[in-house]
Amino acid sequence: MAGSYAALADVPALLNDYPLGPAFLDRFAGMSADALHQLQEQRFRHLMARGWQVPFYRRLWSVQGIEPGDIRGLDDLPRLPIHDKADLMASLAAYPPFGDYHGLAEGFGRSPMVLQTTSGTTGKPQLLMFGPRGREIGNILVARMALWQGLQDGDVVHSVYGHGLINGGHYIREAFTRFTNSLFISAGTGSETRSAAQVRLMHELGASVAVGFVDYLRKLADVAREEGLVPGEHIRLRMIIGHLGTEDRRSVEDAWGGASAYDWYGLGDSGCIAAEGPERDGLHVWEDAQYVEIVDPATRAAVADGASGDLVVTCLYKDDVAPVIRFNTHDVSAFHTGASPNALPFRRIRGFLGRSDNMVKVRGINIYPHAIGALLENRGDLTGEYLCHLARDGSGQDRMTITLEHRHPAADAAPFAALLRAGLGVDVGVRLVPPGATATLTRLDDRQKPIRLIDERQA
Amino acid sequence: MAGSYAALADVPALLNDYPLGPAFLDRFAGMSADALHQLQEQRFRHLMARGWQVPFYRRLWSVQGIEPGDIRGLDDLPRLPIHDKADLMASLAAYPPFGDYHGLAEGFGRSPMVLQTTSGTTGKPQLLMFGPRGREIGNILVARMALWQGLQDGDVVHSVYGHGLINGGHYIREAFTRFTNSLFISAGTGSETRSAAQVRLMHELGASVAVGFVDYLRKLADVAREEGLVPGEHIRLRMIIGHLGTEDRRSVEDAWGGASAYDWYGLGDSGCIAAEGPERDGLHVWEDAQYVEIVDPATRAAVADGASGDLVVTCLYKDDVAPVIRFNTHDVSAFHTGASPNALPFRRIRGFLGRSDNMVKVRGINIYPHAIGALLENRGDLTGEYLCHLARDGSGQDRMTITLEHRHPAADAAPFAALLRAGLGVDVGVRLVPPGATATLTRLDDRQKPIRLIDERQA
Repeated sequence: MAGSYAALADVPALLNDYPLGPAFLDRFAGMSADALHQLQEQRFRHLMARGWQVPFYRRLWSVQGIEPGDIRGLDDLPRLPIHDKADLMASLAAYPPFGDYHGLAEGFGRSPMVLQTTSGTTGKPQLLMFGPRGREIGNILVARMALWQGLQDGDVVHSVYGHGLINGGHYIREAFTRFTNSLFISAGTGSETRSAAQVRLMHELGASVAVGFVDYLRKLADVAREEGLVPGEHIRLRMIIGHLGTEDRRSVEDAWGGASAYDWYGLGDSGCIAAEGPERDGLHVWEDAQYVEIVDPATRAAVADGASGDLVVTCLYKDDVAPVIRFNTHDVSAFHTGASPNALPFRRIRGFLGRSDNMVKVRGINIYPHAIGALLENRGDLTGEYLCHLARDGSGQDRMTITLEHRHPAADAAPFAALLRAGLGVDVGVRLVPPGATATLTRLDDRQKPIRLIDERQA
Repeated sequence: MAGSYAALADVPALLNDYPLGPAFLDRFAGMSADALHQLQEQRFRHLMARGWQVPFYRRLWSVQGIEPGDIRGLDDLPRLPIHDKADLMASLAAYPPFGDYHGLAEGFGRSPMVLQTTSGTTGKPQLLMFGPRGREIGNILVARMALWQGLQDGDVVHSVYGHGLINGGHYIREAFTRFTNSLFISAGTGSETRSAAQVRLMHELGASVAVGFVDYLRKLADVAREEGLVPGEHIRLRMIIGHLGTEDRRSVEDAWGGASAYDWYGLGDSGCIAAEGPERDGLHVWEDAQYVEIVDPATRAAVADGASGDLVVTCLYKDDVAPVIRFNTHDVSAFHTGASPNALPFRRIRGFLGRSDNMVKVRGINIYPHAIGALLENRGDLTGEYLCHLARDGSGQDRMTITLEHRHPAADAAPFAALLRAGLGVDVGVRLVPPGATATLTRLDDRQKPIRLIDERQA
């Protein structure tokens, strides 16, 4: 097919525009802020031209009285309204089944594209749509990350991202398979390949890199030991490329016998936004492809440099299907204020610090349930798995109880309660349970991101 | 990466060599047998040159005293020994973990490649390995099939092939996504996307084509009705592209309200070997890419034209990683002896007729458990799901009991026993159970191919 995805994806040209491997540093190390800015402006102009062709954006912008030509460059970007998942879900509801944010005037599905969904961590799965160009550049950005972090030809990469309709597993598989010379093992979730089979496979095939959500990767280290395979000895991981965010980097590194863990951040809609470099000091935003703002969750205005707020992304590269222009992720992050440690012109962010829309208030204190893991660092007696229950008692008082997996669950819970009270600023109950006891409720085996909060206040 | 998969897969050149869509008929309709033969000989020479570089084949052939140069063309092919899955598994055991049949002298995983596994229907999963060229041509052959059968731009293709490590789902997703302009929905197995969610999705997204194993697709029609979605009305499938083999074509077409079902045949190792054309009269072997022989399971000699035997395949196109030269599938098939109905130079086969290594002898009669479905055609009172139990009684007599799912399980089983006795040539017991009652044992929801035989004679 002349017009098929494979025929349209001009890989050599895309690799020239979005370099990876040695060409990545050749292009960007030492690049001036001005030169980067020029590149961004040029890509932003293409993106805006495309944006005006997309009914969703035309509607969103016109309501604000904005007209084509009003937005002359990135300096004008803050004049455009911010949207979020609720707006995309409303578009899907109003223009079923594919919404009106893909921008395919000739009818959805008549141009080559990839359709997948989000994992539905925060509600109903959302449709994700990609054209050949946007999809392949998205893949290139993941490969760029892994190669910069130290992925080598011949590395055996064990992936625990899920497949089916969910984007994650397919996206990462495409990136590693098509744009690196590693050997990619698409094991998937624990329900796609049983955990015991996964660790045997890691042993047999000589996995040297693991990619996926850290919660499940940490569990796999325990499963390996149960199967008589010692991490670091029978399975020698050199790198773990995951989403550390508020996770405990040390716990997953120790669980895997001293592998180095690398953090990155991205969404299904946007692809890879930022990643740690080899120095692991903040996440470099791929500013040739992504434009990041940090805004106040309430006022939607930019926060002071270095302050935390909602991460809003504009994908400069995604100018074919379903452009992303000022999308509020509701993930909380913040810019690093220091200069880049490696001569790159890119700004750095702190990565995922919590979700502004999952935050719960307990007796006046803001708590991000996904951030609790970070308070329990370097505790070999804990597995790192936990679950928060939030309940309201007869007097209308909210109370949070945190269930921690402990290797000796008969141990004293009081020190953990004290630790969490100090970290959270509010009294919480603590219950210790044996390793694996929270898995049914967190759904660690079959979800991309485990459930960390059960809010029983409505009941 | 200059040498990455994406950079090496020269899609325009591959599409020129292995055309699809209108270019497929342009190239092959009316082609003479001689012209096809010349093309095959040229590709076979490349393949043999590659074969001699692969330690597995060098070993296999040298043991027979064959030397490079002895095999001068396809006429000499029968001199080469036939191998099967047991030989590949022995290669994996002797040269762990990747065997010596990939042919990558420079070290496995240092050249771009795709690694997946078989579904393990007939034992331990086998590693499947593909280079960029072999993988992409394999995808093209699937797309060629679907387009010829009638797939159109904008069709919404619902796939129930599983993902994870298993090749099927990834392979079919790549083929449809990259080489057709259909919209591909990678729903996967019932454990990747629950069956009720699958049928809601088919309804909401307007599925017009379904691909996958027919057993599960037929079940989905029942699930749709349970969810209040009438096949043919709320879900309007036009085509079902599956593996009919010994299945009942009519039952799956009726279940989906009159969709047309198309049969095809292929393996993980070989990719798509043969497919029905729009006329649905036999499966055309893609003889520009695949060379098929039918041999006697016992003597391994060619059977008389039109007689049934083991299908042995040589992939003329797969000349980069893990070549396939005289691989015995142990799937039973037979050539059609009539001329092609549509001016193609390709021979046709009858498709999958059973497995020679799964055949069981019951009181002297050969029974293929997977072929029993075909004996129960056009029975609206049956769901099409069944399971055979084979047991040995105290006197050493073997007895087969066949459990059939019946919409009114209190019905009289005697007519079914008579029908099966007539078809199989041996007395069998019949037990009727309600719809869905065999699913736990056949593992219809989570296996690519359901289990049809439980052999209790060892117990």
